Amino acid sequence: MRTVTKDNITDVFTSYFGEDTDPRVKEVMTSLARHLHDFAKETQLTHDEWRKGLEFLEWAGNITTPERNEFVLLSDVLGMSSLVDMMHSEPDATSSSVLGPFHISNPPALPIGGDMKRDYEGDVLLVQGTVCDKRGNPIVGATLDIWQTAPNGLYSSQDEEQDIHSFHALMTTDENGRYAFTTVRPVSYTVPSDGPVGQILDAVGRHPWRPSHLHFIAGAAGFRNVVTEVFPDDDPYLDQDTVFGVREDLVMKYLQQPAGSFPDGFDLSGKVTGEYLQVDFDFVLVDDPAA
Amino acid sequence: MRTVTKDNITDVFTSYFGEDTDPRVKEVMTSLARHLHDFAKETQLTHDEWRKGLEFLEWAGNITTPERNEFVLLSDVLGMSSLVDMMHSEPDATSSSVLGPFHISNPPALPIGGDMKRDYEGDVLLVQGTVCDKRGNPIVGATLDIWQTAPNGLYSSQDEEQDIHSFHALMTTDENGRYAFTTVRPVSYTVPSDGPVGQILDAVGRHPWRPSHLHFIAGAAGFRNVVTEVFPDDDPYLDQDTVFGVREDLVMKYLQQPAGSFPDGFDLSGKVTGEYLQVDFDFVLVDDPAA
Repeated sequence: MRTVTKDNITDVFTSYFGEDTDPRVKEVMTSLARHLHDFAKETQLTHDEWRKGLEFLEWAGNITTPERNEFVLLSDVLGMSSLVDMMHSEPDATSSSVLGPFHISNPPALPIGGDMKRDYEGDVLLVQGTVCDKRGNPIVGATLDIWQTAPNGLYSSQDEEQDIHSFHALMTTDENGRYAFTTVRPVSYTVPSDGPVGQILDAVGRHPWRPSHLHFIAGAAGFRNVVTEVFPDDDPYLDQDTVFGVREDLVMKYLQQPAGSFPDGFDLSGKVTGEYLQVDFDFVLVDDPAA
Repeated sequence: MRTVTKDNITDVFTSYFGEDTDPRVKEVMTSLARHLHDFAKETQLTHDEWRKGLEFLEWAGNITTPERNEFVLLSDVLGMSSLVDMMHSEPDATSSSVLGPFHISNPPALPIGGDMKRDYEGDVLLVQGTVCDKRGNPIVGATLDIWQTAPNGLYSSQDEEQDIHSFHALMTTDENGRYAFTTVRPVSYTVPSDGPVGQILDAVGRHPWRPSHLHFIAGAAGFRNVVTEVFPDDDPYLDQDTVFGVREDLVMKYLQQPAGSFPDGFDLSGKVTGEYLQVDFDFVLVDDPAA
């Protein structure tokens, strides 16, 4: 189309598609262009504001490295990462939550009842539960990929004091679908806020905190993986997780337990000497239609 | 809000704004988040597609330099640059078009009737006209900042064979508001297509071509600047400018003129020896309300 106007530009954009364009590419690019155009028109976006947006992207590009991805962080604080997660979450399974950038490949195996805290000080936490299918049948040999911050609020990949396997573990459920491990209660922490995303948070009066959480990927042969997080119900940032990760069924009570009392089948007397916290969390997996 | 769902996430996003947030920041960020969320929901954007989008941004960040800005190019091929231009274009003035990345500061002054082509070979083009206000009164001492490609399709900043001032000029209108200069007819050219934006163009079956054009910034004391482009009406890419820059009033006939005949007041016999092309283009400026 020869004459482009502010009223026809979205149609002109779609009229440029080649005839052989993949229908899904067409669908996604049409929707993206229409929403960007509508955003500009609705806000009567000024040249200065548009330039600021471009400078934001340039800055994000400049500081992005394999260790720190400012575009992923942008997606996180805009709620896009959580939204994409939630759209593809199975309603009958445990809710999914954001994967985040701190997962590692090949975490070390930890036996049931094992200890993930090593010599770290902090509130001892026993995490236990089962992995079941949606009818409540335990899944034997399900795997839990587990990770969390050290008590200093850092993941192993962010912290020179930790080796890469620190606070990462892979556990396999027993014949009752059960898992259990001890750790130190993870802490609330901030996402990186010294870059362009931090400036956005500042501009809209938001803090960079995430509530304390344990990360899990629960999986089993024939079932869909669930990438999720478990939060304590007393965390001060639960009502304003800066990456929008909190779901109702993922918020659990961390129960104070007296010294020496252990749940059925676990004698942790060698590992846990005083009072401790306990959180019970059961995972529900649904069949993988592809399996 | 504690429980974030795919249905409430846009509201949760806006509920996080601090009380003192600037109203315009609030407006822009709310609209941006809502359109991004709606885009994701409408397309049921998959994890893989979202990851591809993030990888696109990382790649664009990696190759962006002061000389080549892939984010500006993205904005151009999505129609955003043109849309922002058009939204703030004055209806009574000459239509604006994209500035592009090749403008330079402090172009060399060129007298009226001067020559911009130096020793370059190609179709000689005489460009002439007036700068007027919206009532048709000529504006004396209006400035025209002029730039274009060399006949090889490259701007001076892209081309080691050219010095930085090549095919850049600054002209001031005479007592009749008139301007005129000779040059070589600019050529159609491609935007850079070896990066992520090129991949998008490929995926949607679009070419990377822009129709041939002359760039101008027309300005005068007390008037709003117009950033614009002038296109020949026989360019093969006029109906599909990859950056959406063509406006009806900017498409002009390049008239073939016999050797030795020159428009009123111009004796170009020293500069133009044979047949040549002539394009007449009049600029209309409107009052600057800020002046």
